[in-house]
Order: sequence, then structure tokens, then C-alpha cells
Amino acid sequence: MIAEIVTVGDELLSGNTVDSNSAFIAKRLTERGYWVRRITTVGDDVEEIKKVISEVLERKPDVLIISGGLGPTHDDVTMLAVAEALGRKLILCEKCLERIKEFYTKLYREGYIDDPTLNEGRVKMAYLPEGAEPLENPEGAAPGAYVEHEGVKIFVLPGMPREMKAMLEKEVLPKLGERKFVQAKFLAEVTDESKLAPILAEAVERFNVRIHSSPKGFGKYIGLIIFTESEGEVKKVTEFLEAKGVRLERLR
Amino acid sequence: MIAEIVTVGDELLSGNTVDSNSAFIAKRLTERGYWVRRITTVGDDVEEIKKVISEVLERKPDVLIISGGLGPTHDDVTMLAVAEALGRKLILCEKCLERIKEFYTKLYREGYIDDPTLNEGRVKMAYLPEGAEPLENPEGAAPGAYVEHEGVKIFVLPGMPREMKAMLEKEVLPKLGERKFVQAKFLAEVTDESKLAPILAEAVERFNVRIHSSPKGFGKYIGLIIFTESEGEVKKVTEFLEAKGVRLERLR
Repeated sequence: MIAEIVTVGDELLSGNTVDSNSAFIAKRLTERGYWVRRITTVGDDVEEIKKVISEVLERKPDVLIISGGLGPTHDDVTMLAVAEALGRKLILCEKCLERIKEFYTKLYREGYIDDPTLNEGRVKMAYLPEGAEPLENPEGAAPGAYVEHEGVKIFVLPGMPREMKAMLEKEVLPKLGERKFVQAKFLAEVTDESKLAPILAEAVERFNVRIHSSPKGFGKYIGLIIFTESEGEVKKVTEFLEAKGVRLERLR
Repeated sequence: MIAEIVTVGDELLSGNTVDSNSAFIAKRLTERGYWVRRITTVGDDVEEIKKVISEVLERKPDVLIISGGLGPTHDDVTMLAVAEALGRKLILCEKCLERIKEFYTKLYREGYIDDPTLNEGRVKMAYLPEGAEPLENPEGAAPGAYVEHEGVKIFVLPGMPREMKAMLEKEVLPKLGERKFVQAKFLAEVTDESKLAPILAEAVERFNVRIHSSPKGFGKYIGLIIFTESEGEVKKVTEFLEAKGVRLERLR
């Protein structure tokens, strides 16, 4: 199963914020057996976001996760761009508006804001693409959206990491099936790096695993990540590698 | 001037590594007056990388910076993908090979590796797309490449952050002109967030600046980044904002 991730935000394109969201999302998807094929970052620009989403949809992944640009300010335009890319209208979600109202009333009561009024920016967050299911935001005001379009499951999440993570765990992952893969990281020590490749190829052949390798510096150390179904499988693979003379140290 | 960034690596798509390289590159480009329009991350797959590069070239940015996949292992295929995307051959760079040989001989003498022989993987790193200029890697073995193609300046850099940064600073930025912009970060305090937007719009109108704003939590605090030509301009803009009732605290 193929997935793509799109992150939205000028602060990512100016280098002011490191995009840690896409790695978080990618890890969760990978564990569930999705192969993340591409991650794209664009700015807060309706036309650009729309273009990127249309391109992703042409590649027909099983899942598309979009993060960022759902807030109340004028440059939060992701929902509009999604709606336009899908050729759908933005429709007021009454339930969402109610939830947003409660959210700001609570902030006002607790003294965080001076005015609980549902101004234009706050109301805007309650508009979702026609046919989309709202996704609850346990940590913030803006709801997310889930919509299936021409066979692609599209999830639209906020960009603030705390909100994105909460919505991903609570609302998105349960729709994407059980956790299927374990990722285990190792540091491998080999006397000759060129000998490692055929051993890894044999392990991939024998066991139900994917293995990523990357050199650590220029010495004898290679980082390995083993993706497989269970810790039992990890054990079988590492025993196999060690029997072939690869010394392994598990990380984290 | 428009720029795009492409980062390459399976470890980015599996979420095992957070892509901090693209933010670093984006920041340096932004300071030089480039507008980074899109960042794309793909895996270590010739066809995928080739496809992404071809798509970027169709959008005709002024600059394309590619990072990752230049090492000696079998899954380091970026140079090959770049050459194929440009319809060029990979050509042995004799000077690069000499440099690589010296590099491994030095590592061998210092006891970091057991064998200094130029095996297939190490020799591979000396092949660059026809017509490309090698970029020196002060921190590692693999050279980068600079090639101009149909008006797009393409730079191919390693993925290890230390190597990428050194090559960017030493070999790439001098080819991209002087530093033009200062980025200054502020925390703005406003009693009503909806009043800030018109004030910022007026500042952008009056001064030669770009301003990014993003809410910090749900209170009265908004993060502002001011992009302008000098600290003198930053001062003018902040004085203007403060005169309009926006309280500012400079960050970092």
C-alpha cells in the first residue's frame, strides 16, 4: 500500500521550522505497512497546494495525509485548496462550529483570550470539503477532515505538532488498520562494508523483512533498520546476521 | 528568483530520520533572496528520483538543490538519476577519483578502515553527469556536482548533514550571490489577533519586507518573522509596528 504526505507552511519553505511532522507521520504509516513514496512541502498558497494535491491524486496512492494550514489566520488556506483540488464546495460543518465556539468560550473563561466572539477567521475553520467527515482535534480549535476521493483516502490535519499527533493517533490511524511492522535499529560492525550487501540481500530473501542500511561515518559501522512483523522475526534476522559474522548492537 | 529542494533517502520516507537538511538549505537560500517554492523528498530509487527531477525541471526554477544518495553503497543512486533525468551520461571525473583515493588512504593510515582499495562502490562516487563541475566535499569522500541545464542551476550535494553543510557554504552559496536578507524573529503580543493582519499588510506596503506570522498557542501571542535587507530596515519596521500598538519581543 502506497502513501504520500504533503506538509504546508511558509515557515517550512523559509527554513524557519524543521518539518518534523512528516517524519512522525511517515513512521506511523510505515509501521502499518504503508510505503511512503513521496513527501512534498509547499507554502501557504491556494494555487500551489491545489497543484500539489492534484499531482498526488494523479499518482493514485492509497492514502494521502496533508498537514498544516488549518488555523484561523488569512494564510491558512489548506481546506480551501483541498476542496478546489477535489472539485468540491466548502460546506459549513455545524457540529464543528459548535465545537469551535465551545473551545473559544473555554479559552475566554480561563483568561487566555480577550474576546470569545466567533469572528470570520474562527468560523472559517468550520468549513470542510463537501462529503468530508470531520476529524476531532483534541488539542486545538481546527477540526481535520477525512474524505475519500477516487479511491484515495485523504486526511487533512493541523500543522501544530501537538494537534497533528493527537489527531493522527486518535482519528487517522484507527482508519488505517492494525500496526503491522516493527522497526528495530542496529549499529552493525563489519570489517569490510562491501561484504555486508550480499548478507543483507540473503536475509531479505529468507525472512519477511525490509532492511535499510546507511554508513555511519567512514569506519566499520553501518546503521541498519530492520522492518518486520514482530520482535520474534527481528530476533531470527539478527541471529542470521550474527551467524554470518555481522556484529550487531541494538539502538534505543 | 525561485528555488526548489529535493532530498533523497529511504530513511526520510520511513520516518527514521527527520529531514533537517532541507530547512538548513531553505534558510540559506531565503537569505540570498531566493523563494523556495517546493521541497520534495523521495526514496533511494533511480526511477522515482528521475521522475521528481524531471518534474522540477518542467517548473523551471532558477535553482535546484538536491541532497542525499551520493555514497558508496548500492542504494546511493542520485548521480545516476540526475544524469538520466538530464539525458546525459555519467563520466569518470579523474580529479575526483584521485581525491577519493587520497581520502580512503588517509582513513586507512589513521586506522579507521581495514582496506583502502578503491572497490566498485568507492569508484562509483567519482562518476558525475557529463558537463558537470565537481563540488569539493571537505568533510567526506563523495564529491558533489554543479550543472546548468536549460537555465536551471542544479547542485547535487551529499545527505550527511556535516558534509552537506560544508559543501553548501563553501561551494554552492558563493555561486548564488551575496546574502541579501536578514531574518528577524519576534513574539508579538496583541489583544485581538484580527487587528494584526491589516497592520502587517500596511508594513509590507510601506517597507521592503516580507512578514510571516503564525499563532503561538491560542493566546495573544503571534510569532512574526521579518525578512528584509538589513538590521536598519528591521528597526524601522518594528518601530512602525510598535507605534501601531503591537508589542514585540525579539527572539534568539
